[in-house]
Amino acid sequence: MDKDKTGSINPHSTRTEMGERKIIEIIANCLEAMPNLPVPFGDDVSAVYIDQKRVAVLKTDMLAAKTDVPPNMSLWQAARKALVMNISDFASKGVQPTAALVSLGLPRGFMRKDIEEIARGLNAGAREYDAYVIGGDTGEASELIISVSLYGTAEKKALMLRNGAKPGDILAVTGFFGKSAAGLRLLLDSYKASANLRDVLSGAVCMPKARLKEGLALGRSGAVSASIDSSDGLAWSLHEIGKMSHVGFLVNTVPVAEEVKRFAEFNHLNPIELALYGGEEYELVVTIKPKAWVEAEAAVEAVGGCILPIGKVTKGTKMLLDVDGEKRVIEARGWEHFKSKI
Amino acid sequence: MDKDKTGSINPHSTRTEMGERKIIEIIANCLEAMPNLPVPFGDDVSAVYIDQKRVAVLKTDMLAAKTDVPPNMSLWQAARKALVMNISDFASKGVQPTAALVSLGLPRGFMRKDIEEIARGLNAGAREYDAYVIGGDTGEASELIISVSLYGTAEKKALMLRNGAKPGDILAVTGFFGKSAAGLRLLLDSYKASANLRDVLSGAVCMPKARLKEGLALGRSGAVSASIDSSDGLAWSLHEIGKMSHVGFLVNTVPVAEEVKRFAEFNHLNPIELALYGGEEYELVVTIKPKAWVEAEAAVEAVGGCILPIGKVTKGTKMLLDVDGEKRVIEARGWEHFKSKI
Repeated sequence: MDKDKTGSINPHSTRTEMGERKIIEIIANCLEAMPNLPVPFGDDVSAVYIDQKRVAVLKTDMLAAKTDVPPNMSLWQAARKALVMNISDFASKGVQPTAALVSLGLPRGFMRKDIEEIARGLNAGAREYDAYVIGGDTGEASELIISVSLYGTAEKKALMLRNGAKPGDILAVTGFFGKSAAGLRLLLDSYKASANLRDVLSGAVCMPKARLKEGLALGRSGAVSASIDSSDGLAWSLHEIGKMSHVGFLVNTVPVAEEVKRFAEFNHLNPIELALYGGEEYELVVTIKPKAWVEAEAAVEAVGGCILPIGKVTKGTKMLLDVDGEKRVIEARGWEHFKSKI
Repeated sequence: MDKDKTGSINPHSTRTEMGERKIIEIIANCLEAMPNLPVPFGDDVSAVYIDQKRVAVLKTDMLAAKTDVPPNMSLWQAARKALVMNISDFASKGVQPTAALVSLGLPRGFMRKDIEEIARGLNAGAREYDAYVIGGDTGEASELIISVSLYGTAEKKALMLRNGAKPGDILAVTGFFGKSAAGLRLLLDSYKASANLRDVLSGAVCMPKARLKEGLALGRSGAVSASIDSSDGLAWSLHEIGKMSHVGFLVNTVPVAEEVKRFAEFNHLNPIELALYGGEEYELVVTIKPKAWVEAEAAVEAVGGCILPIGKVTKGTKMLLDVDGEKRVIEARGWEHFKSKI
């Protein structure tokens, strides 16, 4: 793994290859668009109308062992994570997942106990969020592949999409950032931390949580104008909302986790870099109508979550960070398959 | 590839490994069952109730390049096949697919033109059956992985499940068998065929068709008591219906394709083996209530398809073949990942 002085994970030979978003754009351009789609292509989930008001919400995302599973993550954790990363997308739209199907690619040599461990991890990941695994298929693959597809239903008008942010809205997040970025550095490289810190940071990587109860509460509150999950990093999430809503952001607080500040200090890293440009984190990044802030806060706190205002939506397309009087541009980079994985 | 004298593709070192169905059984035993499931675990599709009458029908299956894509299949064909194999499962239940999501695992080194070819193949596979690809995700994988998940809606009572066959019902199929088994032997091994025959047989492998219009017509006719697709081979399909419906079969005609008879003769193979124990074929295998045979036949013919009676459902669990006075047992083997792939 290459490191620069900020501790960012940098691309190797794949620097010149296409990124995930470019690939999705190429694919989208080759597809005939379904008429009357309730959710634009490229949002966190897809959807189809069931009737005039309700939609079926659908999502699929794949976990591949070599790129998505760090060395000390167990099969149980990997399987659970495959569910969590899909459920996080549902959370960001305010949709309760009902059922999951799993398509499993198994390399040769997997034993019964391995398969049972995967199955129990899948079940745990679904049940933790009140969903069930109801089917799927299996076949042989060169590496372990866990492809999850998720289903739920929602009122169309209750969906929190990426494209509704308005200048003046409050930018907020459901938690602190940087733990997964720090944890990955610990697990993949020679960075150091105390035993306690190591537990917290590697736990963030191996046992991620989806902010489903927060997402559902925010959905019910009606206070949200745009929403996304932060699986590709906070900075990237801001750029995505910005692009879909045609707005900019002014961020005046970077929500860095305490443990990340300690890890960064100990390893001479920049904690703000870790929090902005990490990824594999599943916080929600939302914009809130200013008049509805109190309702949003009350809704999230009522379910035991927290919501932190970190800036505001601005006119134009600039993504600016203004912390302690130092203004800088928030770059459009983050955790992207093909570009930033080791 | 090993061959025995019948030309069957036999397992190598994986003979002792677990088969796909054993793996699915192990997984199912670790999952907490969702209450009130409209379709039993292990049928061709999964489903969830939308309301008291309607269900959302869901399916996911994965194509992995090294096991599912023979050497001369193009990326366009592979992508199209990933759709077709999922649509075939919908066809067997009598359900129109509405929307597909695709989770794509791409090995390094794929170029823009490769991705465009895959995307056009996905689009073609969906549009051929009046569905749309509406979303998905992409990441890096060691080999090309195309995981498709399919969605549609249906009346619960109209679903053609595997578990409704009754003794005395007519066993029927929507076409002739063995072309894919012969085609795979041509593509993977040293068997011979004329140029014309080669085109037909390799076409069966590279451009499979799902019997969707036949499945929808049979669903509307109300004549079907049980249904499955034949993607793991005709013999295996019979055993699956038998197991789920607690019945046996007496087959008195093996529907061998003419081209397969010629291929078998030329290569000294047993055509009945090719037709019974092949796979990667997407005919429907159905049981029809005897009084409704005329309606079933009329329904399928009205959409330009054909339906061939090949035997009947019997009491007990025996699977027997009785052709030209020679009685033998139809074995529970077929085309199974992990067990029969080269």
